[in-house]
Amino acid sequence: MRPILGITMGDAAGIGPELILKALATHGVDRCCRPLVIGSLATMEFYRDRLRIPVRFHSVQSAAAARYEPCAVDVLDLGIVDVPRLKIGVVDANPGVAAVVYTQEAGRMALRGDIDAIVSAPLNKEAMRAAGYRFEGQTEILGELAGSERYGMILLLGNLRVMMLTTHCALQDACRAVTKERVLGMLTLADQSLRAFGIDSPRIAVAGLNPHAGEGGLFGREEVEGSIPAIEAARASGINALGPIPADVVFLKARDGAFDLVLAMYHDQANMAGKLLGFGEVVTVIAGIPFIRTSVGHGTAFDIAGKGVADEKNFVLAIEKAAELASLKKGQAR
Amino acid sequence: MRPILGITMGDAAGIGPELILKALATHGVDRCCRPLVIGSLATMEFYRDRLRIPVRFHSVQSAAAARYEPCAVDVLDLGIVDVPRLKIGVVDANPGVAAVVYTQEAGRMALRGDIDAIVSAPLNKEAMRAAGYRFEGQTEILGELAGSERYGMILLLGNLRVMMLTTHCALQDACRAVTKERVLGMLTLADQSLRAFGIDSPRIAVAGLNPHAGEGGLFGREEVEGSIPAIEAARASGINALGPIPADVVFLKARDGAFDLVLAMYHDQANMAGKLLGFGEVVTVIAGIPFIRTSVGHGTAFDIAGKGVADEKNFVLAIEKAAELASLKKGQAR
Repeated sequence: MRPILGITMGDAAGIGPELILKALATHGVDRCCRPLVIGSLATMEFYRDRLRIPVRFHSVQSAAAARYEPCAVDVLDLGIVDVPRLKIGVVDANPGVAAVVYTQEAGRMALRGDIDAIVSAPLNKEAMRAAGYRFEGQTEILGELAGSERYGMILLLGNLRVMMLTTHCALQDACRAVTKERVLGMLTLADQSLRAFGIDSPRIAVAGLNPHAGEGGLFGREEVEGSIPAIEAARASGINALGPIPADVVFLKARDGAFDLVLAMYHDQANMAGKLLGFGEVVTVIAGIPFIRTSVGHGTAFDIAGKGVADEKNFVLAIEKAAELASLKKGQAR
Repeated sequence: MRPILGITMGDAAGIGPELILKALATHGVDRCCRPLVIGSLATMEFYRDRLRIPVRFHSVQSAAAARYEPCAVDVLDLGIVDVPRLKIGVVDANPGVAAVVYTQEAGRMALRGDIDAIVSAPLNKEAMRAAGYRFEGQTEILGELAGSERYGMILLLGNLRVMMLTTHCALQDACRAVTKERVLGMLTLADQSLRAFGIDSPRIAVAGLNPHAGEGGLFGREEVEGSIPAIEAARASGINALGPIPADVVFLKARDGAFDLVLAMYHDQANMAGKLLGFGEVVTVIAGIPFIRTSVGHGTAFDIAGKGVADEKNFVLAIEKAAELASLKKGQAR
């Protein structure tokens, strides 16, 4: 049975509704999943008519009522968006509130098992703040809802899975973050997530920070004092952690199937790997929550919203990845 | 007219002679150059017979005497190697001295214009030290011979040219090395070298150190305080310096022809670019000396020397690159 994906609409003033319409109208994603849009029916109809995308909707008030028929897209209509007053491409509290509520409702549905995974269209952080929320983003909304103590982001870059020890900080600070505690925490999180995805005893490689992964402490001490003790502690607790492996080698090996995930030490390491290996589109999945949730590498793109020019390729990939992960998980549970 | 390449034999106990034999015997490199081996005829004959590689030699005492005929490889025989006592794969002062003398003689020939470029087989640093020399490597032998104040290494990775601000040091130290003075020095060196190679007004991109190249100082100050002032000073002095450009973007743009050279900030940045873009073989060329000299990315490989299993692919590429650069330079001089 194809997994049920709850597709949250994101910010109504951004490109989210357009991405959903294009993805469902033309990409045959219903071959791999049963999609249920979670958002505002009126908003979906507004963009459908504006952009002339031939889609029919079937409005439902619960997942149980969805029919998943090829002729009509099921929409769980939560309303909220004031469509007559909607300003396309403008930060506003009304779509900001709506986007958060859709995400929270999707999270509750996933926790109950009403849906098998969530695929999120982008929300706008400023609009969310204008609406009075303090969340960093959807990851935090769902992490809090699920009661997770520790959660993080896994980048799906082609067939690579990558986590980052640090993201948007100075490289100097990224160097200082390579401590036993932090690396071990990430290894634990990665291991739990991959097992939840249905991978037994996942092989997790730690990328080196320094040239040649430090060459035994000759070029920097972070491996000797941080990542190596973390790997040893992880292995002692049953995690199949490997490395540290030089950064110019580890991603190639992972691409060739040697590892299930690479723990990158810093932003550019992960992003160079993804882009230079030709994996243009980034799909993200949250580690550390009890359900599957994928999203895209881009934002609400207010500058091009409502114009019909948004590229849905990344969003289609997020749908396909969610379906793949949900099928893996269902296979495991069987 | 095909350029004359002086091919130095390197350490007689290593894989150098074997690489030369294989490259000249089977790869038709004489289509792009006129090769003149600079080394020990007796050593070349020893490896030819041992490895049964069908090559005939023509011994000369000066470049002027070389005939460059397809039936026989010209060897400028400088002797020195005590072949009956040669221990394959062992560090020894005798081949150590020989390798330095060959390199120095090749340098003098290049300075005089007897040869158009040098291609170096690897020498062994330990053997060189056993012979009493204090040089770091061949780059320093040739830099000193040429009287260059500042010289460095350009990596040729496929169609990418890359210089590194730092190489084998801790990433922490690489961060600290991103100063205006150092970046400007490297930009000047890169500009001079590329002009010497025949490229007018070369476009030199500086890679970012921090994520998003620091995003205006938000993620680290090195761009704001180091590379940006260096780029501005370089531009003021007529160098077409560009950037800083995020590391996950700059190498892709360079691969697509946007820049003639990328100045990488650290070892893994350059090496991830080369390897992840699929440019497996590294050819190096020295910047800051008045003649062309290429070499390979590997060493003397004492562990496999004399066994006939050395892979000459990288060496053939070094020959081809030298021929290409020498032809460019000759074209410019015409």
